[in-house]
Amino acid sequence: MGSGGRKLEPTIPVVAVVGTGVIGRSWALLFARAGCRTRIYDRDPAQLEKALAWLDQNRELISAHEKLADALAGAGYVQESGPEEIEIKKAIYRELDQAADPQAILGSSTSAHDMSEIADGLAGANRCIVAHPVNPPHVIPVVEILPGVKTDPNVVTRTRDFMTSIGQTPVLMNFYVPAFLLNRMQAAVIREAISLVESGVADVDAVDAVIRDGLGLRWALMGPFGVANTNADGGVREYFTRYGEAYKNCMDQLGPTPSFDPELIERLGQGTDAMTGNASRDETLRWRDRLISRIRELKAKDPQP
Amino acid sequence: MGSGGRKLEPTIPVVAVVGTGVIGRSWALLFARAGCRTRIYDRDPAQLEKALAWLDQNRELISAHEKLADALAGAGYVQESGPEEIEIKKAIYRELDQAADPQAILGSSTSAHDMSEIADGLAGANRCIVAHPVNPPHVIPVVEILPGVKTDPNVVTRTRDFMTSIGQTPVLMNFYVPAFLLNRMQAAVIREAISLVESGVADVDAVDAVIRDGLGLRWALMGPFGVANTNADGGVREYFTRYGEAYKNCMDQLGPTPSFDPELIERLGQGTDAMTGNASRDETLRWRDRLISRIRELKAKDPQP
Repeated sequence: MGSGGRKLEPTIPVVAVVGTGVIGRSWALLFARAGCRTRIYDRDPAQLEKALAWLDQNRELISAHEKLADALAGAGYVQESGPEEIEIKKAIYRELDQAADPQAILGSSTSAHDMSEIADGLAGANRCIVAHPVNPPHVIPVVEILPGVKTDPNVVTRTRDFMTSIGQTPVLMNFYVPAFLLNRMQAAVIREAISLVESGVADVDAVDAVIRDGLGLRWALMGPFGVANTNADGGVREYFTRYGEAYKNCMDQLGPTPSFDPELIERLGQGTDAMTGNASRDETLRWRDRLISRIRELKAKDPQP
Repeated sequence: MGSGGRKLEPTIPVVAVVGTGVIGRSWALLFARAGCRTRIYDRDPAQLEKALAWLDQNRELISAHEKLADALAGAGYVQESGPEEIEIKKAIYRELDQAADPQAILGSSTSAHDMSEIADGLAGANRCIVAHPVNPPHVIPVVEILPGVKTDPNVVTRTRDFMTSIGQTPVLMNFYVPAFLLNRMQAAVIREAISLVESGVADVDAVDAVIRDGLGLRWALMGPFGVANTNADGGVREYFTRYGEAYKNCMDQLGPTPSFDPELIERLGQGTDAMTGNASRDETLRWRDRLISRIRELKAKDPQP
């Protein structure tokens, strides 16, 4: 489904998922669908049970383990999805580095931390890497790959190859920047979107419609450079040469970082309520995941020339 | 096609298209497909011929006119798509206001100018309004609606109703801001995208992949507020309360406005070349329009709950 119907051949046959919250269980589903033997672990047995219930019909290749060492045994790739606190991440990585097979790659779902810091001082720092997914990874293919200063280039290559082999789209960051790539670009849009509502130019629904019935339709197919490249006869060079000054003027007038104070958040909440009505979140999430899978199928069947 | 297969009943049966370049001819196709009698005019007869050739099989409801007055006769809505220079726009609007039927709405495709300025001094300033499409309007539904200070509220309502009736998504701006809504949010993404490439964090293809295989898949369905609303159990209020501080930190560190100097543009050009290979622009545009139409069909058949 998520891979657009292609037959997948994972380059790493046995994987472990450590931490089975919303992100971890989605990784487990993704790995198992791709054909990996998937060993899952959570230090909270109740969380592990919840994940198994959610995985439901997709458990053929999945085994749950009460001890970390059992989950790691034989796994060539480990996906860690624990709490986003640096001291917890460091403690988990100390455990993983001690208990995992020597050749195993230790990938982290962190959206915030630098692997140079998480793996600092570990004997196996060379096999530690960030593999940050978009929620939920079994639906959305991008994975941000961020090596630490000690990560072996071969581990970077193997991680990218593995992600590609299970139908994901790995994107390489050359070094750490706060919030990585995706959340920075998301923050850029959210900042301007909030500014437009806060200043009274337009309401929440109008701003969202500009994305969902406008820019987002192009961005589901091409990123900003691909779009710019199609927006002038002479491609991206002509586009930025012709419109560079206009963009500079516009960019210099974009809105400031909002306060996120309670009054602003409540105003955005009321605007969003007016837009979404009484739709249930679960139903909306199922709809989102269903339609994203169909858009990916369209793209897989009719790829960009 | 563009409307996702719904039967359309235009609220205004006869329209005129003034200026038949890339945007004007796309409007003509959109109007005619929706069932409007569509009268097209360009002061350059060669441009009019080119538009007729492009419209090809879709000319049943379209008539071309060599005189502006003939094109305007009987039209209840006029879509102006002339050059983006304020003095030319003002001159065109003087002509339109003199020659169009008294009840006709005079809509402009301008992406840059304030209708308060274009229509300044006109007897019919109350019927003048910006209706800025995304290129191409027969594929992408968003239309930014921006009244001038003298625009009659009834004209705003009639324009929005008309756009809705032909399958477009009108979004209302309450007052003028430079670059309107869409190009501001696009500029926010482009600024950060360029900054990430320029600083060496990632290459053009990686940055674009984050959008086309990540954020863009969600944004084809929901705008930033809709996405935020689905990203926490408690909706947009919980999301911005929980992540507000993290967003503020991130937003304060986003990249600066780029120089758009020739060296930077060439670097972006080389990155884009490496990403797109030898694909022809025409073929890529046909692919883009085909897939956007299919995404709109998916959304029309399976709308958001």
